[in-house]
Amino acid sequence: MKRYKLTCAYDGSRYKGWQRLGDCENTIQQKIETVIGEVVNFRVSIQGSGRTDAGVHAKGQVFDMKLPFPLQENFLIKVNQELPEDIRLLKVEEVSGAFRARYDAKSKTYEYFVCTGERPSVFETKYVYHFPYMLDVEAMRKGADYLLGKHDFTSFTDDKTEEKSKTRTIYGIHIEEQDGKIMFRYWGNGFLQHMVRIMTGTLLEIGRGDKRPEEITLILEAKNRVEAGFLVPAKGLFLKEVQYE
Amino acid sequence: MKRYKLTCAYDGSRYKGWQRLGDCENTIQQKIETVIGEVVNFRVSIQGSGRTDAGVHAKGQVFDMKLPFPLQENFLIKVNQELPEDIRLLKVEEVSGAFRARYDAKSKTYEYFVCTGERPSVFETKYVYHFPYMLDVEAMRKGADYLLGKHDFTSFTDDKTEEKSKTRTIYGIHIEEQDGKIMFRYWGNGFLQHMVRIMTGTLLEIGRGDKRPEEITLILEAKNRVEAGFLVPAKGLFLKEVQYE
Repeated sequence: MKRYKLTCAYDGSRYKGWQRLGDCENTIQQKIETVIGEVVNFRVSIQGSGRTDAGVHAKGQVFDMKLPFPLQENFLIKVNQELPEDIRLLKVEEVSGAFRARYDAKSKTYEYFVCTGERPSVFETKYVYHFPYMLDVEAMRKGADYLLGKHDFTSFTDDKTEEKSKTRTIYGIHIEEQDGKIMFRYWGNGFLQHMVRIMTGTLLEIGRGDKRPEEITLILEAKNRVEAGFLVPAKGLFLKEVQYE
Repeated sequence: MKRYKLTCAYDGSRYKGWQRLGDCENTIQQKIETVIGEVVNFRVSIQGSGRTDAGVHAKGQVFDMKLPFPLQENFLIKVNQELPEDIRLLKVEEVSGAFRARYDAKSKTYEYFVCTGERPSVFETKYVYHFPYMLDVEAMRKGADYLLGKHDFTSFTDDKTEEKSKTRTIYGIHIEEQDGKIMFRYWGNGFLQHMVRIMTGTLLEIGRGDKRPEEITLILEAKNRVEAGFLVPAKGLFLKEVQYE
């Protein structure tokens, strides 16, 4: 058996997210499995580093798959020829049989883009959230600092599964203004369902003056979703990179 | 009567071009006329600075319209609320009754984007032409120099109308490499049908070594479409700006 680590990018706009949903046509996992299956003439099952929700994009999603035979040299080109234009395979590497994209991921980076101007460009409307308010970037950076480190992020997720740990560690949050947009970059050992989008919504409320930066501490302590800010739309979110050893 | 000069941007991907085609729903002119008509509660007819073909984008198309009453202050906001996300009104100015977007245009700027890398990003695939070859940019710049000035561009258009003048003046062609892409910017007093796309195809053939820069002179002299290079796809083309006095 051969095992492969693959990296892909996708524009999530017209998909129901990464994760295959039964026989539903319209997930990214399903599209990739179908095309790879046709190219290698063998039914494959791929495992992503994690799910991305409907409408979320990826610049570097990672998944693994195993095959009873080695891939041919032109595999990447052939797969990209057959994939729709909004999904691209970027890289394929042979890895040890023990490799699992999901469990071996050490950390992930997400980016979220907000347009605060009068209107986003027609060429970016699918990739930014339009939030036309004056934002105090320094206040948002202060608020972000309270999110850094190891915390129970129950207040920042819509995942209600009680038995699952809601503790995650955030290594860095970087907020940058560029070309009339604000970019939020999050780096952490893992993220709960909607966590990046709720953190961003909370920081935007701080930026607009609806919440104070120090309130983040209270929100974390409350372990209650209603204390945090709003869920920003999926379309501004990009899974930027998954890091492995 | 009031006359207005309006500037708009659009992602042309899903439209049959600028120009209204009878009652066809799917042109940019038709979308804008319908929405403005609803907002001002008066049937309007708009005149663009020129047509853009199906699939061509605009960062600054200009059009004019007349109305028997003045526009309200929130006109721009209201129209943008009703327009689809891929069309945006950027500016509205009241102008003299004699103003015509088409006849008063002094010059226009177009941009064409080519990706020469292995594959375009999934987020740019609708806005660049993928031409994966090593290109000699200096040779293309030399070739472009032969296009500058006043010429009969019969070889560089698919417009076969015999009675129409095919003479145009090109003021500048700028070729720039940025982020694995090549951008061609054309500035001239006007462009014939497909002219920018055929000039770009011809320059790409020069860049790939299929034609020599000096051949441009022979192509111009031939006044025959078959002598020029191929027609590059619409999706890489942007009407960047229309200049007025």
